[in-house]
Amino acid sequence: MTDRIVTGVFDVKFRRSERLVDMTHYLLEKPRILVPLSFFADRYQSAKSSISEDLTIIKETFEKRGIGTLQTVPGAAGGVKFISRTDRAEAKEAISELCTLMENPDRLLPGGYLYMTDLIGSPQVVSKVGKLLATAFADREIDTIMTVATKGIPIAMATAAYLNVPVVIVRNDSKVTEGPTVSINYVSGSQKRIQTMVLSKRSLREGANVLIVDDFMKAGGTINGMINLLKEFDASVSGIGVLVESEDTKERLVDDYVSLVKLRDVDVRSQQIKVVEGNYFSKVSLFGGD
Amino acid sequence: MTDRIVTGVFDVKFRRSERLVDMTHYLLEKPRILVPLSFFADRYQSAKSSISEDLTIIKETFEKRGIGTLQTVPGAAGGVKFISRTDRAEAKEAISELCTLMENPDRLLPGGYLYMTDLIGSPQVVSKVGKLLATAFADREIDTIMTVATKGIPIAMATAAYLNVPVVIVRNDSKVTEGPTVSINYVSGSQKRIQTMVLSKRSLREGANVLIVDDFMKAGGTINGMINLLKEFDASVSGIGVLVESEDTKERLVDDYVSLVKLRDVDVRSQQIKVVEGNYFSKVSLFGGD
Repeated sequence: MTDRIVTGVFDVKFRRSERLVDMTHYLLEKPRILVPLSFFADRYQSAKSSISEDLTIIKETFEKRGIGTLQTVPGAAGGVKFISRTDRAEAKEAISELCTLMENPDRLLPGGYLYMTDLIGSPQVVSKVGKLLATAFADREIDTIMTVATKGIPIAMATAAYLNVPVVIVRNDSKVTEGPTVSINYVSGSQKRIQTMVLSKRSLREGANVLIVDDFMKAGGTINGMINLLKEFDASVSGIGVLVESEDTKERLVDDYVSLVKLRDVDVRSQQIKVVEGNYFSKVSLFGGD
Repeated sequence: MTDRIVTGVFDVKFRRSERLVDMTHYLLEKPRILVPLSFFADRYQSAKSSISEDLTIIKETFEKRGIGTLQTVPGAAGGVKFISRTDRAEAKEAISELCTLMENPDRLLPGGYLYMTDLIGSPQVVSKVGKLLATAFADREIDTIMTVATKGIPIAMATAAYLNVPVVIVRNDSKVTEGPTVSINYVSGSQKRIQTMVLSKRSLREGANVLIVDDFMKAGGTINGMINLLKEFDASVSGIGVLVESEDTKERLVDDYVSLVKLRDVDVRSQQIKVVEGNYFSKVSLFGGD
């Protein structure tokens, strides 16, 4: 009899452990999707009260460890939703790491350009950038993320993974596989060159709320182009987020944006690159102390 | 006294719960990175024996739920590594879902082309595709994933996130921000047109093992181009994975590849698209029964 009770206790303990691991994975994979408690109750053949307790543990751990939070929606159609959120400490660390990575003088290219392709192609870097941008715009209404080919794409996809919204990609040329397109001309801010940007007509619905994301902003000509392109779709801008803004510009065409880092100065002669925090901490309210 | 013991038990239980949630998140975020047991022991101020027990629970749950597995490396320099792996049931479901999504006649474009941009821009779809491709090549030695702009990028990034390797992006034109480049000409297989592909010289080290990933393969001209480009870097091909292969081709320039789905037939007149399983299940050995 004692044996049976002991087995019973282990069994219950094992099931809670298993549930916690599986629920954590499940919620992390499906950010911002409302999961009914009954879904988990069925999945583990457990009482809703046990599931509730599990969710409390997960929520507390997520908040304590800077993973994010769980939002509970009460009622019959209710459930739980995972919201990814960087806390202040993690954001400070990630942005300071980005600054260090970018200040490496090996990045200097002829003309004072910076090589960033390796950062854009690193899943660990891009995932952190995506989490930071997703946190910045967590409270905005966003239906779609828009970016421009090529280097904006990894950042947009990473942000989209945390916000769980689709990405649309603006291109410089139209492709037969995109169907009918809308195109506009825009003036690239720093070089004053007229360029074309094209978006597949069916990729964006009219009236959508759009977060614009890009890797680099100098005068903001490309981003301004995307804002104008959105007007053709009667869509509105929910926010603008960039990985790097460059300080080296006379007039900025875009005012309200969030940048993770700021390229302060590139000295080709002494091979020095100065990269500092962007406006992230002044624009984004974060959990966790200063 | 009894009270204290009870509190103690709850305390231990809470700490295990918290550890399980946080470790699950930690391991999922850092696939294929060796995490020493001492790291977790320090992080939670817990004995290594408790951490070992936690890891056993996580491993069993990951395997049971088709999340992946944990590899244990014994010894002083040892630790644990998360390997993401789709099981057969999940793969069957994901690929069948992809077939259904692609057979939607709304995708038909003039000339019999298929609109797939929405799938490529969906974080949920792309993440499943990435997990399937990462599983297919889990046992190969891979230093880098290579793809071609534009539509290959989201798939490559998603695969890279699971394999935790960087992505390099081949382009049709060279950009000033890429530094010195290597370029080759190639013949696009289906249209017999000569095109150029360009890769930044510093993006790929000599002798690297490269997994080639793309969204669509017809005759394989583009992929064949990437294989030739790799030769210029003395790099070798670890594998080739595509989301869609098209059956409509006379000669295939590439033999050894993994495809998730196969475009069997597009009938523009009757507005019918036929999409079936690719060669995935014949090429990839999966856990879980048939």
